[in-house]
Amino acid sequence: MVFPPVPVPLSGERFHVTYHIMAGDAAAARERAQGIALEQTVELSAKLVPLGDMQQVVGEVERLESVESGRFEVAISYPVEASGFELLQLLNVMYGNISMQTGIRVVEFDLPPALLDAFPGPQFGRKGIRDLLDAPERPLLGTAIKPMGYPPDKLAEYAYQFALGGLDVIKDDHGLADQTFAPFRKRVEKCAEAVQRANAETGGRTLYVPNITGPIETLVERALFAREVGAGGVEVITGVQGYDALRLLAADERVRVPVFSHPGMLGTYTVSRDQGFSLGALYGQVMRLAGADVTIYTNFGGRFPTTREDCRHLTHLIDRPMGHIKPILPMPGGGMTMEKVPELLEFYGKNIILLISGGLFSPGPDLVENGRRFRAVVEQASASI
Amino acid sequence: MVFPPVPVPLSGERFHVTYHIMAGDAAAARERAQGIALEQTVELSAKLVPLGDMQQVVGEVERLESVESGRFEVAISYPVEASGFELLQLLNVMYGNISMQTGIRVVEFDLPPALLDAFPGPQFGRKGIRDLLDAPERPLLGTAIKPMGYPPDKLAEYAYQFALGGLDVIKDDHGLADQTFAPFRKRVEKCAEAVQRANAETGGRTLYVPNITGPIETLVERALFAREVGAGGVEVITGVQGYDALRLLAADERVRVPVFSHPGMLGTYTVSRDQGFSLGALYGQVMRLAGADVTIYTNFGGRFPTTREDCRHLTHLIDRPMGHIKPILPMPGGGMTMEKVPELLEFYGKNIILLISGGLFSPGPDLVENGRRFRAVVEQASASI
Repeated sequence: MVFPPVPVPLSGERFHVTYHIMAGDAAAARERAQGIALEQTVELSAKLVPLGDMQQVVGEVERLESVESGRFEVAISYPVEASGFELLQLLNVMYGNISMQTGIRVVEFDLPPALLDAFPGPQFGRKGIRDLLDAPERPLLGTAIKPMGYPPDKLAEYAYQFALGGLDVIKDDHGLADQTFAPFRKRVEKCAEAVQRANAETGGRTLYVPNITGPIETLVERALFAREVGAGGVEVITGVQGYDALRLLAADERVRVPVFSHPGMLGTYTVSRDQGFSLGALYGQVMRLAGADVTIYTNFGGRFPTTREDCRHLTHLIDRPMGHIKPILPMPGGGMTMEKVPELLEFYGKNIILLISGGLFSPGPDLVENGRRFRAVVEQASASI
Repeated sequence: MVFPPVPVPLSGERFHVTYHIMAGDAAAARERAQGIALEQTVELSAKLVPLGDMQQVVGEVERLESVESGRFEVAISYPVEASGFELLQLLNVMYGNISMQTGIRVVEFDLPPALLDAFPGPQFGRKGIRDLLDAPERPLLGTAIKPMGYPPDKLAEYAYQFALGGLDVIKDDHGLADQTFAPFRKRVEKCAEAVQRANAETGGRTLYVPNITGPIETLVERALFAREVGAGGVEVITGVQGYDALRLLAADERVRVPVFSHPGMLGTYTVSRDQGFSLGALYGQVMRLAGADVTIYTNFGGRFPTTREDCRHLTHLIDRPMGHIKPILPMPGGGMTMEKVPELLEFYGKNIILLISGGLFSPGPDLVENGRRFRAVVEQASASI
């Protein structure tokens, strides 16, 4: 049958997605690119797409160039209206069905003002967090309290000691949920109280950031509870909770604490060079657009396979102009140690939350002292950058 | 420092996850497996884990065997309490941080009654959907209305024609969201009305299943609206909406329509044999546990890289006993055509919703007739199975 042409209300504004496509030659890459342009919009073969306005609904291959043997960089534009001006549908257009094919990777994307306007973005962003911490310039220090299985008192004691030691951000290890051995409310209350007590003693401003990942209907409730008892941020495992959770928390005016995105479950999207998303597109752009103030991800040189080039691309994407959407802070982690601080600061500069978790327990028996040592190492290393 | 031992309230009940681990030899595989057991629970190195109860919090490698050169099958058990009896934390323990490593794949999992009891599972399941359709045994017929860009009237016309043609399930193409050219409410209202009109004419029971993926705070609202105007189910793109959306919809007693899970965005987890999840674990077990009544996925032999073996494993997992959690229906799609119906039925048997979308527009100009032809082809082919 023939799909008849219909008038389609389109503004003419389009957003652009840059993909890497694996293909034998340029002709094959172009064919795959045109396949993507159709698959991600009308899901019809080219010969069935009605003439007229409907041709504009389809993605358009705007650019195609060879990157290396077997890999092509392709820019495809889509009408902003395809996104419905909603985060999830935007992601769906970008990568929904083609996630099921092999050899297509989202490298980065560009949204015009008409689309950016639909997203509030992070409430705090980089500057907002620096304001909270009264730390306008210096590198920030983060750690995670653990282990799963410990009772709230014990976790709170560690949080207290790290806060005394001068850490800026003390977050829950992402494995702390709402478990019998450390129920959510009791844990968050005790840890928040402990960090506030340390702050009162030191005059510091350490933020305690509990993991609030859990049933959707309790998400905002958990965030509000955390804020009420004095937490300084909330952590969400975006890959299990859903991207829209970040937006919901950032857009809710009652939740006036920074949102930290944890990368759990999302690794599969970035570990292969030929598939999924670039580190920067996923942990940088998507999280920033959705509303994370801080994006946690696996650093180069740790126990996960990330390259320096990946991290450089990410820091570029969370910093570059994006309409009214604020720049955010990177929080690379995964096997980081104090010994690596100089290298990290040389690479990242000062706009970073250094995340050392396991490595902050090991230097000695006194956690306050370990925290101070971390701070001293950072101060020394940052003097020279 | 030393983490002191603490008493941990554990029941002794554990759940099991079977992984495939890529490693050079058995010793390396065992080391990786022990790394997973630690990473997914306490996130400490083995020598830092306190003695006593805390040793039970850590995952335990229960079985390790070679599958083929470089690939080992490993079963790891975790205490049920690690999951907090919540879907998202369960997924997080299963695969959260190790998603960021290469060469680890979740093959399947087994949950004891203590954990299954925490999940209501699908409201309808296979039998519930068959009851709605008054089709206790025969294979079911599905299609998707499209394309993105069309107005509600046009989409409703197609829905009407396919319903007259005898389709059982008419779902939205997953690219239909809440867009200017077809706003959610108007589209769902028109399409639901069209399908009900056709049902009144034929005495049929065709279900219209709109895509309700969108902002979290509108999810239940969209489902209730769909139900109110006469939709017979709702579709969620689980990989963008989040797994917990399925649970939320299934658990909400006001939402008394079947939930269809669409695989968009999740493909990356299954396209590599060495990474992510098996087709069966993700689209089969996770979706069933979360509460999907129907799981849509990419079939073998279509335009996506799925094998027959993958599909066999999936149908096994959605059918086998899982406590009180009902068996669900598979809805394989992606480039399916009428010509493939006999092969599909021979492979799947009768418990399937055959999804032909693009391929149902092409046979001729009359969509009612195309629907009837599909039904005739299925009736003929199913007579011999």
